[in-house]
Amino acid sequence: MNKAQYRKIEEWLNGINQYNATPQCGITRDVFTKEDLGARTYIKQQMKEIGLEVKEDCVGNIFGILQGTEQTLSPVWTGSHIDTVRHGGMFDGTAGVVAGLEALRIIKESGIQVKRNLSVNVYTCEEMGRFGACCIGSRALAGKYQLEDLKNFKEESGVSLYDTLIDLNYNLSEFPDVQKKSGDVYASLELHIEQNDILEKHHLPIGIVTGICAPTNLFVEVTGVQSHAGATSMVQRKDAYMAAAEIALLLEKETMQSTSDYITGTVGKISLVPNAVNVIPGKAIFSIDIRSISMRDKEELLDRLKNGIREIEKERKVAINITMQNHDKPVVCNEHLREILKKCCIEQGIPYMDIVSGAYHDSLLLGEFTKVAMLFVPCKDGISHSEKEWADCKDIARGADILAQALIELGNEI
Amino acid sequence: MNKAQYRKIEEWLNGINQYNATPQCGITRDVFTKEDLGARTYIKQQMKEIGLEVKEDCVGNIFGILQGTEQTLSPVWTGSHIDTVRHGGMFDGTAGVVAGLEALRIIKESGIQVKRNLSVNVYTCEEMGRFGACCIGSRALAGKYQLEDLKNFKEESGVSLYDTLIDLNYNLSEFPDVQKKSGDVYASLELHIEQNDILEKHHLPIGIVTGICAPTNLFVEVTGVQSHAGATSMVQRKDAYMAAAEIALLLEKETMQSTSDYITGTVGKISLVPNAVNVIPGKAIFSIDIRSISMRDKEELLDRLKNGIREIEKERKVAINITMQNHDKPVVCNEHLREILKKCCIEQGIPYMDIVSGAYHDSLLLGEFTKVAMLFVPCKDGISHSEKEWADCKDIARGADILAQALIELGNEI
Repeated sequence: MNKAQYRKIEEWLNGINQYNATPQCGITRDVFTKEDLGARTYIKQQMKEIGLEVKEDCVGNIFGILQGTEQTLSPVWTGSHIDTVRHGGMFDGTAGVVAGLEALRIIKESGIQVKRNLSVNVYTCEEMGRFGACCIGSRALAGKYQLEDLKNFKEESGVSLYDTLIDLNYNLSEFPDVQKKSGDVYASLELHIEQNDILEKHHLPIGIVTGICAPTNLFVEVTGVQSHAGATSMVQRKDAYMAAAEIALLLEKETMQSTSDYITGTVGKISLVPNAVNVIPGKAIFSIDIRSISMRDKEELLDRLKNGIREIEKERKVAINITMQNHDKPVVCNEHLREILKKCCIEQGIPYMDIVSGAYHDSLLLGEFTKVAMLFVPCKDGISHSEKEWADCKDIARGADILAQALIELGNEI
Repeated sequence: MNKAQYRKIEEWLNGINQYNATPQCGITRDVFTKEDLGARTYIKQQMKEIGLEVKEDCVGNIFGILQGTEQTLSPVWTGSHIDTVRHGGMFDGTAGVVAGLEALRIIKESGIQVKRNLSVNVYTCEEMGRFGACCIGSRALAGKYQLEDLKNFKEESGVSLYDTLIDLNYNLSEFPDVQKKSGDVYASLELHIEQNDILEKHHLPIGIVTGICAPTNLFVEVTGVQSHAGATSMVQRKDAYMAAAEIALLLEKETMQSTSDYITGTVGKISLVPNAVNVIPGKAIFSIDIRSISMRDKEELLDRLKNGIREIEKERKVAINITMQNHDKPVVCNEHLREILKKCCIEQGIPYMDIVSGAYHDSLLLGEFTKVAMLFVPCKDGISHSEKEWADCKDIARGADILAQALIELGNEI
């Protein structure tokens, strides 16, 4: 079989990343903005050019299908996402879409035919961005929300995802067809940049993911009393921000003290009201993001955190309201798929290691209805969600070679 | 002499506060916005209607002058500001302008003539708002900055106060004339709401201010490493926000442990970069506001704070940059003026108490070139810089009566 070409990978990455709302400041491609729409059109065009049949469901998941010989068999999927965090990098998600495209391109170019349809997919809005929800496309495939819920995914201006999809002429009456059931998809493989520096430190080009951490996302609203920064003495004040700062440091402490094999706790977003130099904040609203490979470890951390928050609430005489946005279950990658990936690595002479995914991915949701596995390629210094994010296209091409072989093997399984 | 009318006070307060960018959410009147410009026009009109001569300097300080009989003598001033914090109240500053107007109105209405000019003034932009600087008008009167500095007072969009003044046709070639020197003004009295609940707790309608706390304002920029919230382990991360949270709590602790008679420390404003749920903040930029009646106490607190910040910087391996915006000197109110105010209270049968001002006021800057004193009237529950701010117009009218008598006494001193 022909080898994946890193120049093709590079061309497609640059092609997609020309659609960017913040040139010179990393990549910003929020879902269904003009940048995202531009990138979608570009990818569909590229899919057609390499001979794939293009389909799109009514929440914007894109499928580029290479026809198999036996249409009664369920398909094998690969793919990832193309939306980014604000001021993020050009590889997170996009590398997996491009590697999948290149895998199907070389399979076709090599004249190889398999039984099952092979599909390279773009899942809508993996990042927690514009509409305050993550993995919107893969979550819909997993049947995790109803049509009505799309009205509650709102951007800051108040516009809902529901209205946005209608404006873009997606036919929401097809929403019941989006969900996949067990058996609808044979297996799914996703390539992604590692977003950590473990592969780099081990000088290895490939990681085979054993399990994917799942996020629990909370929003915390602290209500104190807004008042004058000079005239209100230290003992009189009920400062919403000081309570928020204490909760952040509590989260950090409790996370570091957890006995979990892998767990993280992050406050990434905060807003104060009124957010003025000379006013004691009356409100502090902030996010909490907790990830682990173990649901039990997450729940233990949550319990300790909530107890601590109740103490801070009492101590500081503020009111604290906690809303849970999502509380996702970690996934263990499928043993059989991992064995195939390992075999491909060995046969192609590519060294690899087992690795845990601290970040969540669309595969976390796909795991609800099909067998999943993931390949990691190194990213420089482990930095991701940053304009400094960087990966070597030659590593991505090697990943595409493994992906192609594994897709062929899975495509011929009955 | 005629008595001040609370209905007139009310009418003017409502007249000025019709100019508001956030109806239903408190008062927002940032300097030189269309709301501020509307209120300025309204006030100048009211000044003319009660027979005052209106002047305005080239940074927008407005003077409503009641002519005295001896033009060689320096004038006596009263007044305050009309700009507000965002979502602030309708009394902070504005009450002092309106009380000054009413004092001059009743002096004129009663046919009383004094030797010195009496002037009710509106000082430009007392609050730390749009241009990131406070007391812009009174600071110019005190000669605290140069014409060139106006180019560095910038709103978030980058537009400078310098350009804004030119756009509004202020003649900046007159800037050298703005500054007052010792002797140019005989004395200055400012009425203000207390912004604390001490008068309310003592059931007293008037406070005579002994001294005014002065603010020290810092901006702190913490630079860590922006990275993925799930993939970056707790020990790997250099989280700019966690460092910021620790500094905020350090400020609180050190302020509360200070032995100062009166000192406050506040973080009112913060922004994170990129401010996303799933990204470890690479930057945290926040304000620190320290106020005290004693310069020495502020400096002691600053020293301890800076030492603590250096430790946090080392511990967390982040870079912390501190910029001092202003470091103002507290002012002790003039003994002679305070005696006159007390005498007026006693003669009018109005009970009063001595009080410290935790908030700064334009009088802090006016104190650089003239004798100053201040009158406080109660505000409900001590809440200010909030839409809940409230004061009784009858208290403000009583304050105007004292102000009027004191202005007459000072206006006749030689």
